[in-house]
Amino acid sequence: MLERRKPIWVKEAIDYVMQLKKHGDTEIVSIDDCDGRFLAEPLVADHDVPPFDRSPYDGFALRAIDTKKASGKTPLTFKVIDEIGAGQVSPFEVGCMEAIRIMTGAQIPQGADCVIMLELTQEEQRSEGTFIAIKRSLNKGDNISYQGEDTKKGNLLINKGVAINPGIKALLATFGYSNVKVSKRPVIGIIATGSELLNPDENLVPGKIRNSNGYMIESQILRAGAKFKRYGSISDNLDSLFETIMIALNECDILITTGGVSVGDFDYLPEIYRKLGANLLFNKIAMRPGSVTSCAEKDGKFLFGLSGNPSACYIGFELFVRPYIRYWLRSEQPFLRFIRGTLKKDFLKANPFSRFVRGKIVYENGMVFAEPVGLDKSGVVTSLAWADCLIILPGGTRGYKKGDQVELLILDDQLGCDKPWVEAKFSK
Amino acid sequence: MLERRKPIWVKEAIDYVMQLKKHGDTEIVSIDDCDGRFLAEPLVADHDVPPFDRSPYDGFALRAIDTKKASGKTPLTFKVIDEIGAGQVSPFEVGCMEAIRIMTGAQIPQGADCVIMLELTQEEQRSEGTFIAIKRSLNKGDNISYQGEDTKKGNLLINKGVAINPGIKALLATFGYSNVKVSKRPVIGIIATGSELLNPDENLVPGKIRNSNGYMIESQILRAGAKFKRYGSISDNLDSLFETIMIALNECDILITTGGVSVGDFDYLPEIYRKLGANLLFNKIAMRPGSVTSCAEKDGKFLFGLSGNPSACYIGFELFVRPYIRYWLRSEQPFLRFIRGTLKKDFLKANPFSRFVRGKIVYENGMVFAEPVGLDKSGVVTSLAWADCLIILPGGTRGYKKGDQVELLILDDQLGCDKPWVEAKFSK
Repeated sequence: MLERRKPIWVKEAIDYVMQLKKHGDTEIVSIDDCDGRFLAEPLVADHDVPPFDRSPYDGFALRAIDTKKASGKTPLTFKVIDEIGAGQVSPFEVGCMEAIRIMTGAQIPQGADCVIMLELTQEEQRSEGTFIAIKRSLNKGDNISYQGEDTKKGNLLINKGVAINPGIKALLATFGYSNVKVSKRPVIGIIATGSELLNPDENLVPGKIRNSNGYMIESQILRAGAKFKRYGSISDNLDSLFETIMIALNECDILITTGGVSVGDFDYLPEIYRKLGANLLFNKIAMRPGSVTSCAEKDGKFLFGLSGNPSACYIGFELFVRPYIRYWLRSEQPFLRFIRGTLKKDFLKANPFSRFVRGKIVYENGMVFAEPVGLDKSGVVTSLAWADCLIILPGGTRGYKKGDQVELLILDDQLGCDKPWVEAKFSK
Repeated sequence: MLERRKPIWVKEAIDYVMQLKKHGDTEIVSIDDCDGRFLAEPLVADHDVPPFDRSPYDGFALRAIDTKKASGKTPLTFKVIDEIGAGQVSPFEVGCMEAIRIMTGAQIPQGADCVIMLELTQEEQRSEGTFIAIKRSLNKGDNISYQGEDTKKGNLLINKGVAINPGIKALLATFGYSNVKVSKRPVIGIIATGSELLNPDENLVPGKIRNSNGYMIESQILRAGAKFKRYGSISDNLDSLFETIMIALNECDILITTGGVSVGDFDYLPEIYRKLGANLLFNKIAMRPGSVTSCAEKDGKFLFGLSGNPSACYIGFELFVRPYIRYWLRSEQPFLRFIRGTLKKDFLKANPFSRFVRGKIVYENGMVFAEPVGLDKSGVVTSLAWADCLIILPGGTRGYKKGDQVELLILDDQLGCDKPWVEAKFSK
């Protein structure tokens, strides 16, 4: 007897997953190894930046009041009483008609309240020492970077759960984080099911294909910020699959299987969920591709059952697994970022289920356009390589024309979004 | 005597760098280690995809001609003569009024020319065997994924020089690349100069700051696809700096210094270039920040002299070093991608030099907007962490208003562009 499954909406499926969301552990890594890791605590300024009033230019520090009468016709002369390199502090105080030579980044000396750029001065050596002539007046504060003008001690600079990029790494160094508290990466087990699967180093034989889903998901896992553990591809055999799943569940934080979730005679995942006593959250989603995407939970651990079709598998991961991982890493924006764009092509077919079309974002004159890439069938693997977005044609719509506005989920994005994309019926 | 430098345009500086562009060596890595690496040769399909006619669904393979009279009122009955799991090949040929049970992904058996989905059939067990009833007619080709419909053997799928993402990794697995030929990453030496620099684990003392540029550039180097070698921060001392540079030039493919390129008394880089006998390509660019960005070449190796100011340093890397690295990795789109967007804020100051403002891209209703982030001074480090683009205000312009269109260089982008951004005077 064929099982009839009731499809749920994409948003409902995401909600099922996120109901069980949790933060993973934290760990300390060296600043040398922090790239791409997710901050486990907010980054707060532990001192003012700049930490002292400093000069942004090479020049001379002096008192603005002494320059008031300087002009091209009546240059004024100042005695140079010291020279400060970056990292040095002058022991002298700048007095009336005195100046101190100052390098970029050096601390403004006592008494001075402005800096004149080197290019605007003329140096003169006399027997009494070095003098400079200046031909313009300055105001108090001219060419001074004041203590704390960039950021003040105690300011929250970066939220927890943000991926460390070059700018954040610079902040970590600035504030003395030689060690950084980051979220520990969850370990995600991957089991590819299917008797048709060969390894990349095996020769093709009739009826068989190479296992591309496993490698693809490993790469998606790394991009999402997690680690993977590979359990190889398992033939369609209930017992060996069950055994591998038991081992993997024990060793991993999350488990992904590819294939075997449909209603075919060799689709063993439904039976394995039952045998495990796992709590089935969903096994049918109103989406194309990937309607058979399934999810079960056992003792707080997720078993994501992704489709064996490459595109369906890819999209299932991005829609459902990625936000769970990103929340685990403490991201406050765990969902795929979505933006609006204009379709470059007709999609006249009706969409009983929400359709996710592999696409490319094209920018023209300040506007966002979306262009489908390659052949859009769930078994197709080549177009995944070129896609940088998923074009969403929401379920319950009659079709779309070139020029219509649609929503696009951005792939390969680190910013994310604090809420998931929602079918129109939910947003109303 | 103060040195007077003649500024060149950004595009000219990029041209100087790219005149000496070259491809680096290649190496073979396991598919397990290929994420983010750049392909050293094009990825070509070595077989058709799918490699055989196959079923995209669970169902029954049969002959369309036999179904012509099937309808709700007159269902037709077919004898099921075999069952094919994925990876299997049936030894039988489908004859008149016969069907073969077929699983998703399995090869279409001889004789059959269409597939009916499982859900549309009714199974019946009789003493003579298993039969199915169908209530609709089918056309030749229905529910068959034909050999080569995704891609044909010999098709160029991915150009050389493209960074490997999850979709490309899936292709590598599909086409049996258990080992992948990638571009060897150049090793980039980093020397931070400045007596004011402390390490992240040192306590702040008056007049000093922690070295953030070195860590930031390391992270930028990794993002660009290269490797780094750290030579620490060197005090403003000509001899020790020269010695370290000689060592680093010998050990690295490219050398980056931060700081010391200006005209101050402790800016030793100009003197070091002379002492080395290096060919100075430029030492003044009509840009803000980063006008002192310098570049010299010695025996085919570049010495990039980036500014000691964090933002100037960051931008100098992205504009000039990144394209050189990406070309080294064989990218055909080595330059930063630029798109148009609408300014969200006034910038009323005139721009004698091209100004690069740290910004964030904001999407609203299918349009691209650009919002500046944080304080825009070259010494400012905090806003770099939040920026995902550089807003360009080209040199020679009088200022910009909210609502004006500008060009944006996208940071943290893997796609790139085949040509660099050009000042308006060049594009005319």
